[in-house]
Amino acid sequence: MSFTPADVWQTLKAVRDQGPLVHNITNYVAMQISANALLAVGASPAMIHAVEEASDFAGIASALVVNIGTLSPRWVEAMEASMQTARAKGTPVVLDPVGVGATPYRTDVAVKLLRLGPTVVRGNASEIMALAGAAGITAEAASGKGVDSTHSSAQALGAATAMARTLGLVVAVSGEVDVITDGERVAQVHNGHVLFTRVTAMGCSLSGVLGAFLAVESDALKAVTSAFAVYGLAGEIAAQKGQGPGTFKAHLLDSLYTLDEEATLHGVKLQ
Amino acid sequence: MSFTPADVWQTLKAVRDQGPLVHNITNYVAMQISANALLAVGASPAMIHAVEEASDFAGIASALVVNIGTLSPRWVEAMEASMQTARAKGTPVVLDPVGVGATPYRTDVAVKLLRLGPTVVRGNASEIMALAGAAGITAEAASGKGVDSTHSSAQALGAATAMARTLGLVVAVSGEVDVITDGERVAQVHNGHVLFTRVTAMGCSLSGVLGAFLAVESDALKAVTSAFAVYGLAGEIAAQKGQGPGTFKAHLLDSLYTLDEEATLHGVKLQ
Amino acid sequence: MSFTPADVWQTLKAVRDQGPLVHNITNYVAMQISANALLAVGASPAMIHAVEEASDFAGIASALVVNIGTLSPRWVEAMEASMQTARAKGTPVVLDPVGVGATPYRTDVAVKLLRLGPTVVRGNASEIMALAGAAGITAEAASGKGVDSTHSSAQALGAATAMARTLGLVVAVSGEVDVITDGERVAQVHNGHVLFTRVTAMGCSLSGVLGAFLAVESDALKAVTSAFAVYGLAGEIAAQKGQGPGTFKAHLLDSLYTLDEEATLHGVKLQ
Repeated sequence: MSFTPADVWQTLKAVRDQGPLVHNITNYVAMQISANALLAVGASPAMIHAVEEASDFAGIASALVVNIGTLSPRWVEAMEASMQTARAKGTPVVLDPVGVGATPYRTDVAVKLLRLGPTVVRGNASEIMALAGAAGITAEAASGKGVDSTHSSAQALGAATAMARTLGLVVAVSGEVDVITDGERVAQVHNGHVLFTRVTAMGCSLSGVLGAFLAVESDALKAVTSAFAVYGLAGEIAAQKGQGPGTFKAHLLDSLYTLDEEATLHGVKLQ
Repeated sequence: MSFTPADVWQTLKAVRDQGPLVHNITNYVAMQISANALLAVGASPAMIHAVEEASDFAGIASALVVNIGTLSPRWVEAMEASMQTARAKGTPVVLDPVGVGATPYRTDVAVKLLRLGPTVVRGNASEIMALAGAAGITAEAASGKGVDSTHSSAQALGAATAMARTLGLVVAVSGEVDVITDGERVAQVHNGHVLFTRVTAMGCSLSGVLGAFLAVESDALKAVTSAFAVYGLAGEIAAQKGQGPGTFKAHLLDSLYTLDEEATLHGVKLQ
Repeated sequence: MSFTPADVWQTLKAVRDQGPLVHNITNYVAMQISANALLAVGASPAMIHAVEEASDFAGIASALVVNIGTLSPRWVEAMEASMQTARAKGTPVVLDPVGVGATPYRTDVAVKLLRLGPTVVRGNASEIMALAGAAGITAEAASGKGVDSTHSSAQALGAATAMARTLGLVVAVSGEVDVITDGERVAQVHNGHVLFTRVTAMGCSLSGVLGAFLAVESDALKAVTSAFAVYGLAGEIAAQKGQGPGTFKAHLLDSLYTLDEEATLHGVKLQ
């Protein structure tokens, strides 16, 4: 990969300098921590889901993040309308297909939203493989189903690459090693910590943060890779300060807020 | 009682080893902390409420937790459908009748859900007494009404026992001393801390944790008693480390995650 | 102003002594932290939004807090019904018009709720200016629109005063300096910390806390000024103990809970 820790730092700095307005239609569990993660990196979050206003708001935001964690039909209407508005305006859109494959309804919604053309899809390996399968995208490695967390991000690379190429977007697979691809280029982020898996909505919050980075950096692969690196590195620092998942979460926000150039340049591990 | 701290430890260990999938239909206030408490004890939480998928998901989960804190009609439909699915599959169900007695609507819903046959009902003394009264269950001690928090768990024992016997379930009454009964046996847990009453959704989160323990232990009284003991003891440790309700909450999650055999065997106080 | 730090302390003490029941219909992002802030100051929070029960519950609560952060039509129905009940009973009502001006729907709802006669309106400068403008209230300084956070509370004083006089209520403008007016008297609170702007729902939580103070003090200007001072001072203490927005939030709750007479008398800065 051609991205460096210096690229990551510059992108984080742009987020802090520009404070982009990020529109989130996300799940109930993730709302507070997503908003706090966005504030910690310097962005300005808004959570607006009503059909009566979501599309209007998508028209003034600098990025849109759609997360299907706690679905219901009216919210899906707002997601669709907001994605259409965002795409019409050229605003970047992140889709987080939480739990796709777990129920037929959830899978149908995820595929429907995928067809509206997000800029980035972020999920764990099983979600990416399930989504690719449900969308009829064939890949050598896309044999998994459901939300089996035993899949590694490497196993999902085939599905991710096929999805990225077929639909012209960036696919980001969270895991012990994060894998991000636009179908041609592949970036790996080796930052992170196991405590991320013991706090709820950590992936959802990262999807929110992706919105902020996409708002300030037009190379989506670079934006997403930078956001993963910052988030993972902040988690490493938080794990050193915390004593378990509760204090880890508090320190993660502190670290996102205080992360400086030196720590970024020395701590970011890309491949 | 015949349960020992060693039983508590074995049950916690089983949760950590098996990582059961717990389906929660809970209130907006409690969702995040419930998910985090479940993750901290080693379980895998999911929050899914849409009628379109809740029942499907209940069919694949290892336990279902239904909490009426922030009610609305569509959610109640999902609660009913999910409880029916869970019962048909033999999956344990926890009902948390938050604030039953406060409004007629809330009381009607709580009674309707009680009739669907949960495995465990958990509430404070006033809630258990109000629910028993509303369900037409007569008990000597069941003279209280509403959500008057002045009732102690001992006062609710009559109502709890009558409810447990009449409906064939386990009733758990949270309080300074926790009282848990299946109508024949009665367990008391003397762990806990006053700071639990100054953080929102602590009882709701415990109801979530009950789901995880019920998923790995078929003796519901033992499962529930173990969960109360672990939760209360983790709170005692958290209160020593924290300086008030905010840091207490963070340390509670840390303590649930790090609680070891020695601390459990020495700290659990059962009767 | 005639209020003193001793007034603030007496009002906080009354909240702790009386533990008022505060009914919140607030946004999803703010629910948990609002409930925790209310518990930390000694109040008893309830979050109840269903049309089927919200008005009933408003009839038994000591204060009602309505916050439009995450709107939808059914919730607005419950807000209206609850405000009508509260006003009929003489129960104080706080309106927090989050993001008014951002979308036409949001603005319409905010104006509609304003016409139902809240006791207090709390917002940032841009929200107060946008609400005054949308409600047809003319003030020299009320030239701003939308949610432009560049407006200072001093700039909004004209709009706040006009709104307070026209509608007979108290208007509180959060900012680096907080400005609170009943149209005749003006109080300024100089407590606070920049980290409040890097944690989500801090203003929303303050609106919740206002409910508790209004429940125990009939001079609304005194109640609101006291709540702002307590909240801002607790934030100053929290910022000294925390290392960023995550630990700040935890310490804020601790400080609200532990704030004593000496710290209040020495730390509160009124004008």
